[in-house]
Amino acid sequence: MDLLLFSGGDMRPYRERVLAEIRASLGDATTLHFAPWALAHHDQYTARVQEGFAPPGVTVVGLHAVSDPRAALAQAQALFVGGGNTFRLLKALQTLDLVEIVRQRVTAGELRYIGASAGSNVACPSLRTTNDMPIVQPASFEAFGLLPFQINPHYVEGSTSPGGETRDTRIAEFLEENDVAVLGLREGSWLRRRGDTLHLEGVAGAKLFRRGFDPVEYEPGTDLSWLLTLTPRFDSAG
Amino acid sequence: MDLLLFSGGDMRPYRERVLAEIRASLGDATTLHFAPWALAHHDQYTARVQEGFAPPGVTVVGLHAVSDPRAALAQAQALFVGGGNTFRLLKALQTLDLVEIVRQRVTAGELRYIGASAGSNVACPSLRTTNDMPIVQPASFEAFGLLPFQINPHYVEGSTSPGGETRDTRIAEFLEENDVAVLGLREGSWLRRRGDTLHLEGVAGAKLFRRGFDPVEYEPGTDLSWLLTLTPRFDSAG
Repeated sequence: MDLLLFSGGDMRPYRERVLAEIRASLGDATTLHFAPWALAHHDQYTARVQEGFAPPGVTVVGLHAVSDPRAALAQAQALFVGGGNTFRLLKALQTLDLVEIVRQRVTAGELRYIGASAGSNVACPSLRTTNDMPIVQPASFEAFGLLPFQINPHYVEGSTSPGGETRDTRIAEFLEENDVAVLGLREGSWLRRRGDTLHLEGVAGAKLFRRGFDPVEYEPGTDLSWLLTLTPRFDSAG
Repeated sequence: MDLLLFSGGDMRPYRERVLAEIRASLGDATTLHFAPWALAHHDQYTARVQEGFAPPGVTVVGLHAVSDPRAALAQAQALFVGGGNTFRLLKALQTLDLVEIVRQRVTAGELRYIGASAGSNVACPSLRTTNDMPIVQPASFEAFGLLPFQINPHYVEGSTSPGGETRDTRIAEFLEENDVAVLGLREGSWLRRRGDTLHLEGVAGAKLFRRGFDPVEYEPGTDLSWLLTLTPRFDSAG
Protein backbone atom coordinates (compact mmCIF):
# COMPACT_ATOMS: atom_id res chain seq x y z
CA MET A 1 0.00 0.00 0.00
CA ASP A 2 1.34 3.45 -0.92
CA LEU A 3 -0.40 6.54 0.43
CA LEU A 4 0.69 10.18 0.28
CA LEU A 5 -1.64 12.43 2.26
CA PHE A 6 -1.20 16.20 2.33
CA SER A 7 -2.91 18.47 4.84
CA GLY A 8 -3.59 20.92 2.00
CA GLY A 9 -3.77 24.68 1.89
CA ASP A 10 -1.38 26.71 -0.20
CA MET A 11 1.36 24.23 -1.19
CA ARG A 12 3.29 26.61 -3.48
CA PRO A 13 5.86 27.67 -0.85
CA TYR A 14 7.20 24.08 -0.77
CA ARG A 15 6.10 23.00 -4.21
CA GLU A 16 9.41 21.37 -5.14
CA ARG A 17 9.20 19.01 -2.19
CA VAL A 18 5.59 18.23 -3.03
CA LEU A 19 6.53 17.46 -6.63
CA ALA A 20 9.33 15.17 -5.48
CA GLU A 21 6.91 13.30 -3.23
CA ILE A 22 4.36 12.93 -5.99
CA ARG A 23 7.08 11.70 -8.34
CA ALA A 24 8.10 9.13 -5.69
CA SER A 25 4.47 7.97 -5.45
CA LEU A 26 4.07 7.61 -9.18
CA GLY A 27 7.05 5.36 -9.82
CA ASP A 28 7.04 4.74 -13.57
CA ALA A 29 3.38 5.67 -14.04
CA THR A 30 2.89 8.42 -16.62
CA THR A 31 -0.82 8.92 -16.00
CA LEU A 32 -2.28 10.32 -12.80
CA HIS A 33 -6.02 9.88 -12.47
CA PHE A 34 -7.62 12.81 -10.69
CA ALA A 35 -10.85 12.91 -8.67
CA PRO A 36 -12.06 16.55 -8.90
CA TRP A 37 -15.48 16.26 -7.26
CA ALA A 38 -14.71 18.20 -4.08
CA LEU A 39 -14.97 21.39 -6.16
CA ALA A 40 -17.75 22.39 -8.55
CA HIS A 41 -15.67 23.15 -11.64
CA HIS A 42 -14.02 19.89 -12.68
CA ASP A 43 -12.24 20.91 -15.89
CA GLN A 44 -10.66 23.96 -14.27
CA TYR A 45 -9.59 21.98 -11.25
CA THR A 46 -8.02 19.23 -13.36
CA ALA A 47 -6.10 21.82 -15.40
CA ARG A 48 -4.82 23.45 -12.20
CA VAL A 49 -3.48 20.12 -10.94
CA GLN A 50 -1.86 19.36 -14.29
CA GLU A 51 -0.15 22.73 -14.25
CA GLY A 52 0.79 22.93 -10.61
CA PHE A 53 1.46 19.43 -9.38
CA ALA A 54 2.14 17.02 -12.24
CA PRO A 55 5.82 16.08 -12.57
CA PRO A 56 7.24 16.49 -16.10
CA GLY A 57 6.01 13.78 -18.44
CA VAL A 58 2.95 12.95 -16.33
CA THR A 59 -0.56 13.49 -17.71
CA VAL A 60 -3.41 14.23 -15.32
CA VAL A 61 -6.71 12.64 -16.39
CA GLY A 62 -9.85 14.02 -14.77
CA LEU A 63 -12.12 11.13 -13.82
CA HIS A 64 -15.16 13.36 -14.44
CA ALA A 65 -14.21 13.39 -18.13
CA VAL A 66 -13.87 9.66 -18.74
CA SER A 67 -16.89 7.66 -19.86
CA ASP A 68 -16.58 5.03 -17.12
CA PRO A 69 -14.64 6.24 -14.06
CA ARG A 70 -15.05 2.90 -12.31
CA ALA A 71 -13.48 1.03 -15.23
CA ALA A 72 -10.69 3.61 -15.37
CA LEU A 73 -9.94 3.09 -11.68
CA ALA A 74 -9.94 -0.68 -12.14
CA GLN A 75 -6.90 -0.19 -14.39
CA ALA A 76 -5.25 2.97 -13.04
CA GLN A 77 -1.83 2.98 -11.39
CA ALA A 78 -2.17 6.22 -9.44
CA LEU A 79 -5.06 8.28 -8.08
CA PHE A 80 -5.00 11.86 -6.80
CA VAL A 81 -8.04 12.93 -4.80
CA GLY A 82 -8.21 16.71 -4.60
CA GLY A 83 -9.47 18.96 -1.81
CA GLY A 84 -12.53 21.15 -1.56
CA ASN A 85 -15.75 20.16 0.17
CA THR A 86 -15.48 16.69 1.76
CA PHE A 87 -19.23 16.03 1.76
CA ARG A 88 -19.52 16.80 -1.93
CA LEU A 89 -16.49 14.62 -2.66
CA LEU A 90 -17.70 11.61 -0.68
CA LYS A 91 -21.21 11.84 -2.10
CA ALA A 92 -19.81 11.78 -5.65
CA LEU A 93 -17.55 8.82 -4.88
CA GLN A 94 -20.53 6.93 -3.45
CA THR A 95 -22.94 7.88 -6.24
CA LEU A 96 -20.41 6.76 -8.87
CA ASP A 97 -19.76 3.54 -6.90
CA LEU A 98 -16.02 4.18 -6.64
CA VAL A 99 -15.43 3.61 -2.92
CA GLU A 100 -15.00 -0.15 -2.94
CA ILE A 101 -12.83 -0.41 -6.06
CA VAL A 102 -10.42 2.23 -4.72
CA ARG A 103 -10.31 0.63 -1.26
CA GLN A 104 -9.60 -2.82 -2.71
CA ARG A 105 -6.95 -1.79 -5.19
CA VAL A 106 -5.11 0.59 -2.85
CA THR A 107 -5.12 -2.01 -0.07
CA ALA A 108 -3.81 -4.63 -2.51
CA GLY A 109 -0.96 -2.31 -3.48
CA GLU A 110 -2.22 -2.00 -7.06
CA LEU A 111 -3.23 1.66 -6.95
CA ARG A 112 -1.13 4.42 -5.41
CA TYR A 113 -3.21 6.98 -3.54
CA ILE A 114 -2.42 10.67 -3.22
CA GLY A 115 -4.77 12.96 -1.30
CA ALA A 116 -4.87 16.62 -0.33
CA SER A 117 -7.19 18.08 2.31
CA ALA A 118 -10.61 16.47 1.65
CA GLY A 119 -8.74 13.81 -0.35
CA SER A 120 -6.70 12.97 2.76
CA ASN A 121 -9.80 13.02 4.93
CA VAL A 122 -11.60 10.41 2.82
CA ALA A 123 -8.55 8.11 3.06
CA CYS A 124 -9.61 7.71 6.72
CA PRO A 125 -12.40 5.44 7.95
CA SER A 126 -14.91 8.31 8.04
CA LEU A 127 -15.35 11.96 7.08
CA ARG A 128 -16.23 12.74 10.71
CA THR A 129 -13.16 14.96 11.25
CA THR A 130 -13.65 17.28 8.29
CA ASN A 131 -13.81 21.06 8.80
CA ASP A 132 -16.23 21.51 5.93
CA MET A 133 -19.86 22.56 5.77
CA PRO A 134 -22.24 19.62 5.08
CA ILE A 135 -23.63 21.20 1.90
CA VAL A 136 -24.87 17.85 0.55
CA GLN A 137 -25.81 14.60 2.29
CA PRO A 138 -23.70 11.57 1.43
CA ALA A 139 -25.33 8.14 1.77
CA SER A 140 -22.95 7.39 4.63
CA PHE A 141 -20.02 9.04 6.43
CA GLU A 142 -17.93 5.93 5.75
CA ALA A 143 -14.93 6.62 3.53
CA PHE A 144 -12.02 4.60 2.07
CA GLY A 145 -10.63 3.42 5.42
CA LEU A 146 -7.01 3.17 4.28
CA LEU A 147 -5.84 4.10 7.79
CA PRO A 148 -7.20 3.02 11.20
CA PHE A 149 -7.36 6.60 12.52
CA GLN A 150 -8.67 10.00 11.47
CA ILE A 151 -6.84 12.97 9.97
CA ASN A 152 -7.98 16.52 10.69
CA PRO A 153 -6.64 18.50 7.70
CA HIS A 154 -5.59 22.15 8.03
CA TYR A 155 -5.11 21.61 11.75
CA VAL A 156 -4.54 24.86 13.60
CA GLU A 157 -4.54 25.99 17.22
CA GLY A 158 -6.57 28.82 18.58
CA SER A 159 -10.04 30.09 17.96
CA THR A 160 -11.43 29.88 14.44
CA SER A 161 -14.04 32.60 14.99
CA PRO A 162 -14.61 35.54 17.36
CA GLY A 163 -15.81 33.99 20.61
CA GLY A 164 -15.88 30.70 18.78
CA GLU A 165 -14.63 27.29 19.61
CA THR A 166 -11.15 26.08 18.77
CA ARG A 167 -10.30 23.13 16.57
CA ASP A 168 -9.15 21.39 19.77
CA THR A 169 -12.66 21.79 21.21
CA ARG A 170 -14.17 20.23 18.11
CA ILE A 171 -11.77 17.31 18.22
CA ALA A 172 -12.51 16.88 21.94
CA GLU A 173 -16.22 16.64 21.02
CA PHE A 174 -15.33 14.04 18.39
CA LEU A 175 -13.52 12.04 21.08
CA GLU A 176 -16.59 12.21 23.35
CA GLU A 177 -18.45 10.23 20.70
CA ASN A 178 -15.72 8.11 19.10
CA ASP A 179 -12.74 6.25 20.53
CA VAL A 180 -10.59 6.94 17.48
CA ALA A 181 -7.23 8.72 17.29
CA VAL A 182 -7.20 12.04 15.39
CA LEU A 183 -4.02 13.36 13.83
CA GLY A 184 -4.26 17.13 13.45
CA LEU A 185 -2.15 17.64 10.32
CA ARG A 186 -0.90 21.21 9.99
CA GLU A 187 -0.75 22.85 6.56
CA GLY A 188 2.72 22.05 5.24
CA SER A 189 2.61 18.51 6.64
CA TRP A 190 1.97 15.21 4.96
CA LEU A 191 1.90 11.51 5.74
CA ARG A 192 3.53 8.74 3.75
CA ARG A 193 2.30 5.21 4.27
CA ARG A 194 4.22 2.36 2.68
CA GLY A 195 2.88 -1.02 3.74
CA ASP A 196 3.09 -1.15 7.54
CA THR A 197 5.19 1.99 7.91
CA LEU A 198 3.89 5.51 8.35
CA HIS A 199 5.97 8.68 8.47
CA LEU A 200 5.13 12.31 9.12
CA GLU A 201 6.90 14.56 6.59
CA GLY A 202 6.93 18.17 5.49
CA VAL A 203 7.66 21.44 7.22
CA ALA A 204 5.03 21.89 9.92
CA GLY A 205 4.39 18.86 12.16
CA ALA A 206 1.19 17.43 13.57
CA LYS A 207 -0.66 16.95 16.85
CA LEU A 208 -2.20 13.67 17.95
CA PHE A 209 -5.43 13.54 19.96
CA ARG A 210 -6.57 10.36 21.71
CA ARG A 211 -9.30 9.73 24.24
CA GLY A 212 -7.84 9.67 27.74
CA PHE A 213 -4.45 11.14 26.72
CA ASP A 214 -3.06 14.66 26.56
CA PRO A 215 -2.44 15.79 22.96
CA VAL A 216 1.08 15.04 21.70
CA GLU A 217 3.03 17.15 19.21
CA TYR A 218 5.14 15.42 16.53
CA GLU A 219 7.90 16.92 14.40
CA PRO A 220 8.39 16.25 10.66
CA GLY A 221 10.37 13.05 10.17
CA THR A 222 8.67 11.15 13.00
CA ASP A 223 7.96 7.45 12.50
CA LEU A 224 4.26 7.04 13.30
CA SER A 225 3.94 3.42 12.18
CA TRP A 226 2.43 2.47 15.55
CA LEU A 227 -0.72 4.42 14.60
CA LEU A 228 -1.40 1.68 12.03
CA THR A 229 -1.90 -0.82 14.87
CA LEU A 230 -4.78 1.12 16.48
CA THR A 231 -8.38 -0.06 16.31
CA PRO A 232 -10.93 2.70 15.66
CA ARG A 233 -14.20 2.53 17.63
CA PHE A 234 -16.84 4.88 16.24
CA ASP A 235 -20.02 5.86 18.08
CA SER A 236 -18.52 4.81 21.37
CA ALA A 237 -19.66 7.43 23.87
CA GLY A 238 -17.01 8.48 26.41
CA MET B 1 -46.44 29.52 15.09
CA ASP B 2 -44.02 31.21 17.52
CA LEU B 3 -40.27 30.84 16.98
CA LEU B 4 -37.40 32.63 18.71
CA LEU B 5 -34.04 31.77 17.15
CA PHE B 6 -30.77 33.08 18.55
CA SER B 7 -27.49 32.97 16.68
CA GLY B 8 -25.79 31.91 19.91
CA GLY B 9 -22.36 32.60 21.32
CA ASP B 10 -21.90 34.47 24.56
CA MET B 11 -25.31 36.01 25.27
CA ARG B 12 -24.41 37.47 28.69
CA PRO B 13 -23.66 41.00 27.38
CA TYR B 14 -27.33 41.40 26.36
CA ARG B 15 -28.84 38.91 28.78
CA GLU B 16 -31.67 41.19 29.89
CA ARG B 17 -32.96 41.52 26.33
CA VAL B 18 -32.66 37.76 25.85
CA LEU B 19 -34.63 37.13 29.04
CA ALA B 20 -37.33 39.55 27.92
CA GLU B 21 -37.61 37.73 24.59
CA ILE B 22 -37.81 34.33 26.27
CA ARG B 23 -40.46 35.68 28.64
CA ALA B 24 -42.42 36.94 25.62
CA SER B 25 -42.18 33.48 24.03
CA LEU B 26 -43.37 31.69 27.14
CA GLY B 27 -46.58 33.64 27.70
CA ASP B 28 -48.10 32.14 30.83
CA ALA B 29 -46.15 28.87 30.61
CA THR B 30 -44.20 28.15 33.79
CA THR B 31 -42.32 25.12 32.44
CA LEU B 32 -39.71 25.29 29.69
CA HIS B 33 -38.75 21.91 28.26
CA PHE B 34 -35.09 21.81 27.30
CA ALA B 35 -33.36 19.64 24.66
CA PRO B 36 -29.73 19.32 25.89
CA TRP B 37 -28.40 16.75 23.41
CA ALA B 38 -26.06 19.05 21.46
CA LEU B 39 -23.65 18.81 24.40
CA ALA B 40 -22.42 15.69 26.17
CA HIS B 41 -23.26 16.63 29.77
CA HIS B 42 -27.02 16.98 29.95
CA ASP B 43 -27.56 17.66 33.66
CA GLN B 44 -24.92 20.39 33.71
CA TYR B 45 -26.29 21.98 30.59
CA THR B 46 -29.86 22.00 31.90
CA ALA B 47 -28.71 23.59 35.15
CA ARG B 48 -26.84 26.28 33.22
CA VAL B 49 -29.96 27.17 31.24
CA GLN B 50 -32.09 27.25 34.40
CA GLU B 51 -29.61 29.60 36.03
CA GLY B 52 -28.79 31.81 33.08
CA PHE B 53 -31.86 32.04 30.88
CA ALA B 54 -35.02 31.06 32.76
CA PRO B 55 -37.20 34.03 33.68
CA PRO B 56 -38.25 34.16 37.37
CA GLY B 57 -40.90 31.54 38.17
CA VAL B 58 -40.06 29.36 35.18
CA THR B 59 -38.74 25.81 35.68
CA VAL B 60 -36.45 24.28 33.06
CA VAL B 61 -37.06 20.55 32.58
CA GLY B 62 -34.32 18.61 30.81
CA LEU B 63 -35.90 16.21 28.31
CA HIS B 64 -33.03 13.77 28.87
CA ALA B 65 -34.26 13.32 32.45
CA VAL B 66 -37.92 12.53 31.74
CA SER B 67 -38.99 8.91 31.23
CA ASP B 68 -40.75 9.56 27.90
CA PRO B 69 -39.51 12.72 26.11
CA ARG B 70 -41.94 12.17 23.24
CA ALA B 71 -44.92 12.10 25.59
CA ALA B 72 -43.58 15.18 27.38
CA LEU B 73 -43.32 17.07 24.08
CA ALA B 74 -46.85 16.02 23.13
CA GLN B 75 -48.05 18.08 26.12
CA ALA B 76 -45.38 20.79 26.47
CA GLN B 77 -46.11 24.47 25.90
CA ALA B 78 -42.55 25.64 25.24
CA LEU B 79 -39.36 23.98 24.01
CA PHE B 80 -35.82 25.35 24.17
CA VAL B 81 -33.29 23.57 21.95
CA GLY B 82 -29.77 24.38 23.09
CA GLY B 83 -26.57 24.78 21.09
CA GLY B 84 -23.47 22.63 20.84
CA ASN B 85 -22.83 20.10 18.09
CA THR B 86 -25.63 20.11 15.50
CA PHE B 87 -24.94 16.56 14.27
CA ARG B 88 -25.12 15.15 17.78
CA LEU B 89 -28.31 17.11 18.44
CA LEU B 90 -30.10 16.02 15.27
CA LYS B 91 -29.07 12.39 15.70
CA ALA B 92 -30.52 12.37 19.23
CA LEU B 93 -33.77 13.99 18.06
CA GLN B 94 -34.08 11.36 15.31
CA THR B 95 -33.14 8.41 17.53
CA LEU B 96 -35.71 9.48 20.13
CA ASP B 97 -38.30 10.02 17.39
CA LEU B 98 -38.94 13.64 18.36
CA VAL B 99 -38.68 15.37 14.99
CA GLU B 100 -42.23 14.87 13.76
CA ILE B 101 -44.02 15.65 17.03
CA VAL B 102 -42.11 18.92 17.41
CA ARG B 103 -42.69 19.89 13.77
CA GLN B 104 -46.42 19.20 14.01
CA ARG B 105 -47.06 20.94 17.31
CA VAL B 106 -44.92 24.00 16.55
CA THR B 107 -46.52 24.38 13.12
CA ALA B 108 -49.95 24.07 14.69
CA GLY B 109 -49.09 26.86 17.14
CA GLU B 110 -49.35 24.51 20.13
CA LEU B 111 -45.66 24.49 21.09
CA ARG B 112 -43.47 27.59 21.25
CA TYR B 113 -39.97 26.98 19.95
CA ILE B 114 -36.82 28.68 21.21
CA GLY B 115 -33.45 27.79 19.71
CA ALA B 116 -29.85 28.91 20.12
CA SER B 117 -27.06 28.11 17.66
CA ALA B 118 -27.52 24.40 16.79
CA GLY B 119 -31.07 24.74 18.11
CA SER B 120 -31.72 27.51 15.56
CA ASN B 121 -30.04 25.51 12.81
CA VAL B 122 -32.35 22.51 13.30
CA ALA B 123 -35.38 24.80 13.06
CA CYS B 124 -34.42 25.06 9.37
CA PRO B 125 -35.20 22.45 6.70
CA SER B 126 -31.72 20.89 7.00
CA LEU B 127 -28.53 21.00 9.06
CA ARG B 128 -26.59 21.71 5.87
CA THR B 129 -25.49 25.20 7.00
CA THR B 130 -24.01 24.23 10.36
CA ASN B 131 -20.40 25.17 11.20
CA ASP B 132 -19.93 22.05 13.31
CA MET B 133 -17.78 18.97 12.88
CA PRO B 134 -19.80 15.89 11.81
CA ILE B 135 -18.75 13.86 14.86
CA VAL B 136 -21.69 11.46 14.53
CA GLN B 137 -23.84 10.47 11.56
CA PRO B 138 -27.53 11.35 11.79
CA ALA B 139 -29.98 9.18 9.82
CA SER B 140 -30.71 12.19 7.62
CA PHE B 141 -29.76 15.87 7.37
CA GLU B 142 -33.45 16.78 7.40
CA ALA B 143 -34.44 18.85 10.42
CA PHE B 144 -37.63 20.49 11.77
CA GLY B 145 -38.28 22.65 8.71
CA LEU B 146 -40.06 25.46 10.58
CA LEU B 147 -38.68 28.00 8.09
CA PRO B 148 -38.27 27.74 4.29
CA PHE B 149 -34.66 28.92 4.36
CA GLN B 150 -31.42 28.15 6.19
CA ILE B 151 -29.76 29.97 9.08
CA ASN B 152 -25.98 30.04 9.41
CA PRO B 153 -25.45 30.64 13.14
CA HIS B 154 -22.41 32.57 14.45
CA TYR B 155 -22.08 34.21 11.06
CA VAL B 156 -18.84 36.15 10.72
CA GLU B 157 -16.88 37.71 7.88
CA GLY B 158 -13.27 37.03 7.16
CA SER B 159 -11.10 33.97 7.23
CA THR B 160 -11.74 31.42 9.94
CA SER B 161 -8.25 29.88 9.73
CA PRO B 162 -4.79 30.89 8.50
CA GLY B 163 -4.93 30.61 4.72
CA GLY B 164 -8.38 29.12 5.18
CA GLU B 165 -11.66 29.77 3.56
CA THR B 166 -14.14 32.33 4.78
CA ARG B 167 -17.68 31.61 5.91
CA ASP B 168 -18.78 33.40 2.73
CA THR B 169 -16.86 30.83 0.67
CA ARG B 170 -18.56 27.98 2.47
CA ILE B 171 -21.99 29.50 1.97
CA ALA B 172 -21.15 30.08 -1.72
CA GLU B 173 -20.35 26.35 -1.95
CA PHE B 174 -23.69 25.60 -0.31
CA LEU B 175 -25.41 27.73 -2.97
CA GLU B 176 -23.61 25.81 -5.73
CA GLU B 177 -25.45 22.70 -4.57
CA ASN B 178 -28.71 24.10 -3.17
CA ASP B 179 -31.03 26.87 -4.35
CA VAL B 180 -31.93 27.85 -0.80
CA ALA B 181 -31.52 31.25 0.90
CA VAL B 182 -29.05 31.37 3.80
CA LEU B 183 -29.35 34.00 6.50
CA GLY B 184 -25.97 34.54 8.14
CA LEU B 185 -27.05 35.42 11.66
CA ARG B 186 -24.33 37.28 13.58
CA GLU B 187 -23.82 36.58 17.27
CA GLY B 188 -26.06 39.05 19.09
CA SER B 189 -28.85 38.61 16.53
CA TRP B 190 -32.06 36.66 16.67
CA LEU B 191 -35.16 36.01 14.62
CA ARG B 192 -38.75 36.11 15.82
CA ARG B 193 -41.39 34.35 13.77
CA ARG B 194 -45.03 34.85 14.68
CA GLY B 195 -47.33 33.20 12.15
CA ASP B 196 -46.52 34.74 8.77
CA THR B 197 -44.30 37.51 10.11
CA LEU B 198 -40.57 37.32 10.64
CA HIS B 199 -38.38 39.99 12.22
CA LEU B 200 -34.66 40.31 12.73
CA GLU B 201 -33.90 41.53 16.25
CA GLY B 202 -30.94 42.03 18.57
CA VAL B 203 -27.79 44.06 18.39
CA ALA B 204 -25.77 42.77 15.44
CA GLY B 205 -27.69 42.27 12.18
CA ALA B 206 -27.51 39.57 9.57
CA LYS B 207 -26.46 38.97 5.97
CA LEU B 208 -28.60 37.20 3.41
CA PHE B 209 -27.09 34.96 0.70
CA ARG B 210 -29.10 33.81 -2.30
CA ARG B 211 -28.07 32.12 -5.52
CA GLY B 212 -27.72 34.68 -8.27
CA PHE B 213 -27.80 37.71 -5.95
CA ASP B 214 -25.13 39.72 -4.16
CA PRO B 215 -25.27 39.27 -0.38
CA VAL B 216 -27.49 41.82 1.39
CA GLU B 217 -26.91 43.19 4.90
CA TYR B 218 -29.89 43.71 7.22
CA GLU B 219 -30.05 45.79 10.40
CA PRO B 220 -31.80 44.75 13.61
CA GLY B 221 -35.50 45.60 13.43
CA THR B 222 -35.88 44.64 9.77
CA ASP B 223 -39.10 42.94 8.69
CA LEU B 224 -38.00 39.79 6.85
CA SER B 225 -41.46 38.25 6.47
CA TRP B 226 -40.92 37.86 2.72
CA LEU B 227 -38.35 35.15 3.45
CA LEU B 228 -41.25 32.97 4.59
CA THR B 229 -42.59 32.94 1.02
CA LEU B 230 -39.44 31.39 -0.48
CA THR B 231 -39.32 27.79 -1.69
CA PRO B 232 -36.12 25.91 -0.80
CA ARG B 233 -34.66 23.62 -3.46
CA PHE B 234 -32.01 21.29 -2.07
CA ASP B 235 -29.58 19.28 -4.21
CA SER B 236 -30.16 21.61 -7.12
CA ALA B 237 -26.74 22.08 -8.73
CA GLY B 238 -26.00 25.64 -9.91
